[in-house]
Amino acid sequence: MSEQNLGVASATSSQSASDIATLQAKILAFAAEREWQQFHDPKNLAMAVAVEAGELMDHFRWVRSEEARRVLDDARTRTEVEEEAADVAILLFEFAAVCGIDLGAAIERKLARNAERYPVALAKGRAVKHDRLREG
Amino acid sequence: MSEQNLGVASATSSQSASDIATLQAKILAFAAEREWQQFHDPKNLAMAVAVEAGELMDHFRWVRSEEARRVLDDARTRTEVEEEAADVAILLFEFAAVCGIDLGAAIERKLARNAERYPVALAKGRAVKHDRLREG
Amino acid sequence: MSEQNLGVASATSSQSASDIATLQAKILAFAAEREWQQFHDPKNLAMAVAVEAGELMDHFRWVRSEEARRVLDDARTRTEVEEEAADVAILLFEFAAVCGIDLGAAIERKLARNAERYPVALAKGRAVKHDRLREG
Amino acid sequence: MSEQNLGVASATSSQSASDIATLQAKILAFAAEREWQQFHDPKNLAMAVAVEAGELMDHFRWVRSEEARRVLDDARTRTEVEEEAADVAILLFEFAAVCGIDLGAAIERKLARNAERYPVALAKGRAVKHDRLREG
Repeated sequence: MSEQNLGVASATSSQSASDIATLQAKILAFAAEREWQQFHDPKNLAMAVAVEAGELMDHFRWVRSEEARRVLDDARTRTEVEEEAADVAILLFEFAAVCGIDLGAAIERKLARNAERYPVALAKGRAVKHDRLREG
Repeated sequence: MSEQNLGVASATSSQSASDIATLQAKILAFAAEREWQQFHDPKNLAMAVAVEAGELMDHFRWVRSEEARRVLDDARTRTEVEEEAADVAILLFEFAAVCGIDLGAAIERKLARNAERYPVALAKGRAVKHDRLREG
Repeated sequence: MSEQNLGVASATSSQSASDIATLQAKILAFAAEREWQQFHDPKNLAMAVAVEAGELMDHFRWVRSEEARRVLDDARTRTEVEEEAADVAILLFEFAAVCGIDLGAAIERKLARNAERYPVALAKGRAVKHDRLREG
Repeated sequence: MSEQNLGVASATSSQSASDIATLQAKILAFAAEREWQQFHDPKNLAMAVAVEAGELMDHFRWVRSEEARRVLDDARTRTEVEEEAADVAILLFEFAAVCGIDLGAAIERKLARNAERYPVALAKGRAVKHDRLREG
């Protein structure tokens, strides 16, 4: 996503598709209209997030890392990947809503924690888990 | 999430934690500062989303559906679940940004498609996949 | 699986379908014939195991725990679940073979370790992770 | 796994660690001793398989495909990967047993079906899903 795209998106109002809480309200209404709340407990929603994450990943399973970006050059595959990414987001947003988790705030807290765990000086250019970052 | 919570969140400005594009800009900056873009191709990010989705689900694996909500009554577990939900979101948001997917728009499109696939009259109170919804 | 089924299966020779190494030889031959070894590195195989595990789980996502056994009463669903379970096994067996892991021995070692982590006296009737088993 | 390793393993008797049914009997006894059958319904076991598959995959998430084999050169990582592979197998074997699925037979059937879906002439050297294999 280019800087420009990010700029355009963040310039939109809180009613836009980019606002988590606005999207959550739509997702919850969709489930409520169909009386699906009875199925959508935290356990089942967490399962559903993982199922959809598996489907998203499926598009990349045999591709070499360096060719992974080219997977999206195929229009049909791009549409499928977009739909799978949307599915993960829809269920994750509903999970957070049902659990009473403020997802945006949780993300901010986790980024702050990651900044402590992965100081730039230590983590730069290294894909090493935090618990091994300070070894050797 | 109560109506009230949703109201408070959606009333905040586009600079708030609830805006996907704003969060994506922070996530991309975090990765760029650590020169992690080399690892964060679509394949690896899709894998990472699925790994974190598994960790989120782990908290619910032996719990009965009807007790799943109570899992979050334990403060330590709630914090862990919030962190895992944040991890899934962070990686999914980065995946979308790296792939040039407008996640909010993709969600809106998928909800519209789901509305066609699951008409209220047919889907009410039934957890049946769309391809079997019109059978028997 | 009844005791009887287990008995019948374990009475068969090492050439039977129940022997992991025999199955691995067939799986490796299948991949080699199609020159798929180039795609089947440990990373891609681990991804594939997780994708198939997601598809297996998909059949149970909205079902209540106590109704989960009844899912398999439907003949079509049973066949699909069997195929998904087979897919997970095929890819896991290939993963182990490609990594040089003796899966049977690894299972035996893990069961021995679990026996230490989950002593009967402490773990009986409790679905609690080992690191919390000794708390309060 | 070298041909030699496979040979050694398949030469062992049906009582060896390489026999699925023998391993299933041990796994079921382990769960029964702890009165865990109440938690181990098909839904929860399918979830658990997917959680463990995610943990297995976690070891490879930032690694380039061509370096994936080298991950196992590190002794500590190899042990961890072996344990995760064992966890997936243990839960998958228990899942099959609880569902009354003969896993070995299911694998043989799936391999036969895959042989039809992926004829050598069409599939050689190509990592393309069967439903797209006959296109263009």
